[in-house]
Amino acid sequence: MNAPWITYRPELKVLDCTIRDGGLVNDHRFDDAFVKAVYEACVEAGIDYMEIGYKASKELFPRDQFGPWKHCDEEDLRRVVGDNPTELKLSAMADAGKSNWRTDILPKSESVLDMIRVAFYVHQVSEAVDMINDAAEKGYEVTANLMAVSKAKEEEIDQALEVLAETPACQLVVVDSFGSLYAEQIERLVKKYLECGKATGKEVGMHAHNNQQLAFANTIEAIIHGANRVDASMAGLGRGAGNCPMELLIGFLRNPKFKIRPIYKVIQDQLQPLRQTVEWGAFPEFMITGQLNEHPRSAIAARRGEMCDRYVEFYDKMISDV
Amino acid sequence: MNAPWITYRPELKVLDCTIRDGGLVNDHRFDDAFVKAVYEACVEAGIDYMEIGYKASKELFPRDQFGPWKHCDEEDLRRVVGDNPTELKLSAMADAGKSNWRTDILPKSESVLDMIRVAFYVHQVSEAVDMINDAAEKGYEVTANLMAVSKAKEEEIDQALEVLAETPACQLVVVDSFGSLYAEQIERLVKKYLECGKATGKEVGMHAHNNQQLAFANTIEAIIHGANRVDASMAGLGRGAGNCPMELLIGFLRNPKFKIRPIYKVIQDQLQPLRQTVEWGAFPEFMITGQLNEHPRSAIAARRGEMCDRYVEFYDKMISDV
Repeated sequence: MNAPWITYRPELKVLDCTIRDGGLVNDHRFDDAFVKAVYEACVEAGIDYMEIGYKASKELFPRDQFGPWKHCDEEDLRRVVGDNPTELKLSAMADAGKSNWRTDILPKSESVLDMIRVAFYVHQVSEAVDMINDAAEKGYEVTANLMAVSKAKEEEIDQALEVLAETPACQLVVVDSFGSLYAEQIERLVKKYLECGKATGKEVGMHAHNNQQLAFANTIEAIIHGANRVDASMAGLGRGAGNCPMELLIGFLRNPKFKIRPIYKVIQDQLQPLRQTVEWGAFPEFMITGQLNEHPRSAIAARRGEMCDRYVEFYDKMISDV
Repeated sequence: MNAPWITYRPELKVLDCTIRDGGLVNDHRFDDAFVKAVYEACVEAGIDYMEIGYKASKELFPRDQFGPWKHCDEEDLRRVVGDNPTELKLSAMADAGKSNWRTDILPKSESVLDMIRVAFYVHQVSEAVDMINDAAEKGYEVTANLMAVSKAKEEEIDQALEVLAETPACQLVVVDSFGSLYAEQIERLVKKYLECGKATGKEVGMHAHNNQQLAFANTIEAIIHGANRVDASMAGLGRGAGNCPMELLIGFLRNPKFKIRPIYKVIQDQLQPLRQTVEWGAFPEFMITGQLNEHPRSAIAARRGEMCDRYVEFYDKMISDV
């Protein structure tokens, strides 16, 4: 790469996961106006993909308890994006073990979605392969998102990647679910994923969490080492500590197709007001679970209850639980 | 360095700048109990230095408009730390052009302070050299903190370092005043400072700001490349977006002498309550000045006035001003 500070990599693509990951803080109960504002900001900002929600099971996640972006029914999608006559591609995520993917994911010809991202833990890799094959056969671009990689053993990761390398997934995504990884670990994983995906031409992606305020830094690190698919969200909205803030990522990228002003606008008009009812960010409880490489669920529970802001008690509890 | 992830560098020392840099958000009007709580947390946490304030001119910063930590008079210091019968060393900062350092900095034998950090812009290097010599002659450990290095030309930095190399300062500190630097720039500066200080045995320090949520990441980067003196503050308290959060830094370091629990305790008992009256953090206005490599003063003004949270207006103004 020549003069990397001044030029840019045209093959680098950005995915907005504001609604999908952000929905984990409010059971995906965003109103249409909010989702439309994020969609329009993505279009205006030149973002490549918008992940608009999950394809989650309606038995596990009933419609009366979750908003429409948990299921991404076609009529809900089209109410907001119409036929999506834009350059922005739309994505939905399907979790292994939580999705009726065989029936709920329609053939691409009947859907406004362009991409299915398959999320799974390392022990679910067999179902993930079936899901990837199914979505690819239906006509979608497909990605493989191995979650909680910071908890998996090295040989588990290696074996999962070996299996995934043979699938039609076009991306292998490094997912720091607990926000516990440091730059040197990101480098090692990105290089490993690149190596595994090389023979079948797969790109490597990065999905970071901000528990240790490293989501943006780790995303840059992944880019430096060759990741060409990166996730971010408006104002970092996402579960727990949230994700890599889109406004920081776009400020860093040099491709003139990206515009930052529409991002600050949607943050001002939609995300900042949302903070009155919903909380996300690198609060100390999330730092503690990140430092301990633990799922944020106990931190989320602490912040929603009487233990909120009682960091020492929370720390003591986490230490004695580990 | 062998097995750097599991072991540690015993020569790595941490400075807490909560009161000194944090005082820039409230004109150094901390009450004694707050300062004492931070002091005790530093002692218990095994932190090496605490920077307790400025040695600032009383003409420029009158005592009726600024708290005692702007001037660090000996009686104010001793009211909180006594004779400081601990391992923790105490530091005060003196700014070129804003300090009556000849008279206000006492001989070390008459002071509870251990270190003077001399802060200056590149055009003030001559006064800085005089200040460094004066403080060293008085018996202090002295550092050279070249501020706003992101705005200085390469040849200015090189010439300043050449002059500073000959002084009795024992540290050259990389100071990212505007929070605008990325990891690759930190690497380059740390290596340059190390090279310049090598012949006279100077250590290199890192003082980061969090405008782009990179303060912790950049501090790690500096450590990786050989910085052995790093600044952080409790809950990241500091001007504008704040500094590298101490709770993240101590969570990263592997030296068993550092304890994280007292840090979460002081954050819970003192820093979190402080947020009711004082604001700091990586708000979008500070991201914008960081991205534009500008002093945070316009962002601070915006957040204190009617323009608060009107990011698009602020962005438009900053872009047209640049």
